[in-house]
Amino acid sequence: MKFSIIGTSWITELFIKATEQTGLATLHSVYSRTENAAKEFAQKHGAMHWFTEMADMLADNETNFVYVASPNSFHFEHTMKCLENGKHVFCEKPLVFTEEQWEKVKHTAEELGLYVFEGYRHLFSPNYYTLKSGLEKAGKIRSAMFQYIQYSSKYDRFKNGEEPNVFAKEFAGGALMDLGVYPLSMAIDLFGEPQEIHYFPVHLSNGIDGSGTLILEYGEFNVTILCSKIAQATIPSEIQGEDGAWTMDHIAPIEKLTFYDRKTKHANELAGEQEEVDMVYELKAFVYMIQQKDKAAYESWMERSRQVAKWTEIARKKQGILFPGE
Amino acid sequence: MKFSIIGTSWITELFIKATEQTGLATLHSVYSRTENAAKEFAQKHGAMHWFTEMADMLADNETNFVYVASPNSFHFEHTMKCLENGKHVFCEKPLVFTEEQWEKVKHTAEELGLYVFEGYRHLFSPNYYTLKSGLEKAGKIRSAMFQYIQYSSKYDRFKNGEEPNVFAKEFAGGALMDLGVYPLSMAIDLFGEPQEIHYFPVHLSNGIDGSGTLILEYGEFNVTILCSKIAQATIPSEIQGEDGAWTMDHIAPIEKLTFYDRKTKHANELAGEQEEVDMVYELKAFVYMIQQKDKAAYESWMERSRQVAKWTEIARKKQGILFPGE
Repeated sequence: MKFSIIGTSWITELFIKATEQTGLATLHSVYSRTENAAKEFAQKHGAMHWFTEMADMLADNETNFVYVASPNSFHFEHTMKCLENGKHVFCEKPLVFTEEQWEKVKHTAEELGLYVFEGYRHLFSPNYYTLKSGLEKAGKIRSAMFQYIQYSSKYDRFKNGEEPNVFAKEFAGGALMDLGVYPLSMAIDLFGEPQEIHYFPVHLSNGIDGSGTLILEYGEFNVTILCSKIAQATIPSEIQGEDGAWTMDHIAPIEKLTFYDRKTKHANELAGEQEEVDMVYELKAFVYMIQQKDKAAYESWMERSRQVAKWTEIARKKQGILFPGE
Repeated sequence: MKFSIIGTSWITELFIKATEQTGLATLHSVYSRTENAAKEFAQKHGAMHWFTEMADMLADNETNFVYVASPNSFHFEHTMKCLENGKHVFCEKPLVFTEEQWEKVKHTAEELGLYVFEGYRHLFSPNYYTLKSGLEKAGKIRSAMFQYIQYSSKYDRFKNGEEPNVFAKEFAGGALMDLGVYPLSMAIDLFGEPQEIHYFPVHLSNGIDGSGTLILEYGEFNVTILCSKIAQATIPSEIQGEDGAWTMDHIAPIEKLTFYDRKTKHANELAGEQEEVDMVYELKAFVYMIQQKDKAAYESWMERSRQVAKWTEIARKKQGILFPGE
């Protein structure tokens, strides 16, 4: 398959590396607002074409799908444009920031017979499957703590008076949208929709959430999520059951995965070696879904995307965190 | 000093061990509702006297203070009785379960010139002082996660249809009162009173909180507390700042204490050896306070006790967790 890209940051470079490693797709064309950036990126990665007008790139019939990695606030608009031009879409998280946007994407893709995929690399990795398939060893789940805390180099710029996209409401940034959706999507993938959600943001001077705690109430247990772009953390995440505890060194990617058995007091390390570029796993899932026209997988992954969009929207709106158009 | 005890469980045995190790106090008399339990416990620990009537024990002028370790719901009543009989009181946490009870204890002790001390062993240990005095190394605090999760052997009895005190509202039990107050008191000792508190309990069949998540909002950061008597956990607690993270293996006692510096990427282990019976540290603080008539220390520790009582009361009442007399 041939693909085009929207967005030329480090994550796009990683995605291209994943396509090269797997041989599953070839970079066909590059879009960037500036000629220089587009050309340079295209030449660096061996793309034959580059564009400064998105419409021109999307008019090209040779491209099968588009990898969308623009700022969060453009994901919906860019995904829709790609679909309307007959392209499948692989969109970085978050695909949308409202459930309504999700409905439009879903409807349009269905009408045009295209596939949309939200990039959640952590939910497609082998170590995550080990966790998911072995979850019941922990017995009745009674508590979970997931953390995604990463001091952003862009926070230094913010402190110097700038407003990088990931710290701007205008670009649908903030700790919840940028990092929190990783653990939130994992909770929903593992446990389904919560009964209720609560968000306790720590606001920066411009009103964006630099840190925050998210509570997902499931009745018989809570999932507590810490996300932050402005702090340092070292502790693992954990799922705490009556019979034992599953511990992950990180949410994405999982490199260490331990099950501790309460009764035997024995800890078992269960992680295997994973590809360093862990995007290869989601890329494979995406390509196989399209090639095999796997509607069942598509529907279940899109339904998970809907749930994540719905609950992040509820969580942030309760706190008055509003994005463009809201 | 000579002391008497109310309550004959494992925690009282530990307290006696602490008095023996330090030589700071001698067990004088034992109270238990049943003659056999009182006599057996007294003989085991070399106490000269035992009583089945609390009034008789408290009428004895030779006793200087009483160690109160009855079920949570009796702490207030027993503390008041001891004071009214002229005894200083060392009361296990939680001293009270309402701020009103705290006011009465404080007033009575003041009137009678006596000291009351709430047993929070973790706040008097050397490793905790290392943390507290080095806290600023983490820079601006942006987040903290404290967990006290311990599967209780009494939960197995609960599952078999019994209702042990620590799982009964009647005895002011539950995860928050029994374990949550440890991390909560640490947060208040480190950071002062929060602006707001929220509790998300996981209820057992009788309405008691078997697990729960507590959020303390401080504006510039949250402290998130997980407490549970019905799950297994292995992860440390952590204070997460802009410049680094402090990690503790447990809330009480701290045996490993690590500071990770974000800029140098270097982790420093800072815990020292501590007494295995970590109650010796709080016992020393208590005895010195009385001997040196240290009103300043007394006031500051009692004020911390008031704050903990106040915020636990707010947290649980928001959730309709009511105890005897409420």
